[in-house]
Amino acid sequence: MEKYLKKASQASKVIATLSGKRKNKILNDMAEALLKNQHFIINANWMDINEGKKNKLSSALMDRLLLNKERIEGMAQAIKDIAALKDPLGKIHEGWVVENGMNIQKVSVPIGVIGIIYESRPNVTSDTAALCLKSGNICILKGGKEAINSNNAIAKTLQDVLESHNLPKEAISLLPDSSREGVANLIKQDNYVDLIIPRGGEALIKFVSTNATVPVVKHDKGLCHTYIDEFADIQKALDVSVNAKCRRVGICGAMETLLVNKNIANKILPLLKEKFDEQNIELRGCKKTAKIIECKKATKDDWATEYLDNILSIKIVKNTKEAIEHISIYGSGHSDAIITENYTNIELFLNSVDSACVYLNASTQFTDGGEFGFGAEVGISTNKLHARGPMGINELTTYKFKIFGNGQIR
Amino acid sequence: MEKYLKKASQASKVIATLSGKRKNKILNDMAEALLKNQHFIINANWMDINEGKKNKLSSALMDRLLLNKERIEGMAQAIKDIAALKDPLGKIHEGWVVENGMNIQKVSVPIGVIGIIYESRPNVTSDTAALCLKSGNICILKGGKEAINSNNAIAKTLQDVLESHNLPKEAISLLPDSSREGVANLIKQDNYVDLIIPRGGEALIKFVSTNATVPVVKHDKGLCHTYIDEFADIQKALDVSVNAKCRRVGICGAMETLLVNKNIANKILPLLKEKFDEQNIELRGCKKTAKIIECKKATKDDWATEYLDNILSIKIVKNTKEAIEHISIYGSGHSDAIITENYTNIELFLNSVDSACVYLNASTQFTDGGEFGFGAEVGISTNKLHARGPMGINELTTYKFKIFGNGQIR
Repeated sequence: MEKYLKKASQASKVIATLSGKRKNKILNDMAEALLKNQHFIINANWMDINEGKKNKLSSALMDRLLLNKERIEGMAQAIKDIAALKDPLGKIHEGWVVENGMNIQKVSVPIGVIGIIYESRPNVTSDTAALCLKSGNICILKGGKEAINSNNAIAKTLQDVLESHNLPKEAISLLPDSSREGVANLIKQDNYVDLIIPRGGEALIKFVSTNATVPVVKHDKGLCHTYIDEFADIQKALDVSVNAKCRRVGICGAMETLLVNKNIANKILPLLKEKFDEQNIELRGCKKTAKIIECKKATKDDWATEYLDNILSIKIVKNTKEAIEHISIYGSGHSDAIITENYTNIELFLNSVDSACVYLNASTQFTDGGEFGFGAEVGISTNKLHARGPMGINELTTYKFKIFGNGQIR
Repeated sequence: MEKYLKKASQASKVIATLSGKRKNKILNDMAEALLKNQHFIINANWMDINEGKKNKLSSALMDRLLLNKERIEGMAQAIKDIAALKDPLGKIHEGWVVENGMNIQKVSVPIGVIGIIYESRPNVTSDTAALCLKSGNICILKGGKEAINSNNAIAKTLQDVLESHNLPKEAISLLPDSSREGVANLIKQDNYVDLIIPRGGEALIKFVSTNATVPVVKHDKGLCHTYIDEFADIQKALDVSVNAKCRRVGICGAMETLLVNKNIANKILPLLKEKFDEQNIELRGCKKTAKIIECKKATKDDWATEYLDNILSIKIVKNTKEAIEHISIYGSGHSDAIITENYTNIELFLNSVDSACVYLNASTQFTDGGEFGFGAEVGISTNKLHARGPMGINELTTYKFKIFGNGQIR
């Protein structure tokens, strides 16, 4: 491991100083190579698919695993799109001259060596590798074991391109030991690895957070709320809350709990029930809710549960303040929304709710790098430090201070 | 501990939303209270001083520990200066409208609950408390045990001001259990604590990094280099390297190794030796250095040692590239300088050396929040993530996204 990480660390110095033009040429070559190697990749994917069938993976998981011509074309296009992004390096965030005449510039630079642990979709392998290369970082990738053959084939394809450009193949690599022990080892290598991004279930996130000595940017759960204020526009409230729940129930930005102001509950809950019934959403309400519409009874556990399913808990609150308190106790700091036309309540909610994304009159399902206009998404950070919320390519950089003097001494 | 942290966590919501005007009033009251309570504080300090005498602390440590009228006036003035800083909260870093019309704003907000572990100087207690309050954070402070009585008296003084403003005293508190176990417990409380800043020796930093589940911004060692290029201006090279070593040998920005280009070595080393001899600096040179000037022989260990003392290691290198390589192996990523007039070597050095601060023709001793114009310094981060290099009050903030819609659904 150490020998391999030393090579990776050396590779990072080479990649960090590539010109934007050269990186884009490499990325476009990688896109072409994926297309050219598609039979090789699809054959490897077939091994994973057959293994998955043997292991009786769910059909959802099997679908995520599958690669075909269209999907490989999508992967190639994604790399081309990443090449087309503005280079995130060398940006002068701030620059100023201090009293003694030194010129100080705060400049964006690569982070270095990034370890990324993710789930079974093989396209994440090429997306992530491309994002890291574009931002001057090298990546150590640990995908799901179900996709091991596909990931190997994709990584081999990308590494061949690196080598054709006389660049070290360690700039993009799969973690050599992909066992639990291998991961445990990786996350303690703070001498060589600068950042770990775990994307996956709670068990993985907890394991990494507890054991890592390398800094971690988590991609944790989302227990998202929408609060319908008494001054909400009824139509917006209906549209937005149904979308926040139903567009896709299984993503981290999906609403799990709907909070309703008591003064609008009688009017809006029956309308909401009609819409949610159409979408086969099971409703679990507080006592007051159950007096207005037919629903299951919500327990305290419901407020704390990220269903990722066709279930919604509903609670009636007396005002914006109580909604904020509920969110501060049960929310996960991911995305929360208020639906209202009232200025004071907008200010109170947006300023007091301590979440990565706070929405006014819009669906929490917008929490996504693409929707935010970042061009590509690295993940959605539930950290408070370094990066928070949707992470684009700029969040794969750090900064250094360049200080230009002409002999200054202190 | 958990009960106390719950209170702290609640206090953080109150402090986060105070207006700038109110925070400044509180801070100025705190400055007055320190002056008014100076006898109380000096009496407490006397207990620490007496204990320190019994325990035969070094005179340097005793001096750091001592509080008197002038020092307390200094602490009060520091709080007033912090009050006068621009409020770091609510700054819109970026704002844009996406295609569907949603207006997205990336806004600075407090981090929340910050644990700070530091050494024996009691003024750090009031400085840090003021910086955290100004930035809307609450702090849990763990100072050196030598200063426990002084710190208690200072914290009590500040807490009384909080209570006189009807604010929870948990907004500024000393860690209730200041033992090693207390620290070990604190750094695992990721449900309540958002950031740990350890400032201290290597053992502390290692202990915190290894055991924390809370994100850590380290304040680690500085093994700083100055490289005198063959195209250096001789006078600047002499002035800057002598200052980088000698101004204060015990701070993290002090030069520990001088790298000298082989084409300028014969000319400049005798001049440097003269200057360093005047300052009683022991020189330890590589073989080539020892052929030019009289000096001790440097071993490999010297390149890896942060002396913090009147010792300097000197190595002759053949070019800028070799200087960069040496720094990449032995440097600590803190502050490194090049002295040259050559454009290509400037670019190569400043871009390739992966340190928080890279200097051209200036002393590495400038790495300091005050010198950078930040008004006040929280510390010097040797992290790559969140904050790097000198940390001002802005580095005690994170951001959230506010998304203003009018019914958008995805």
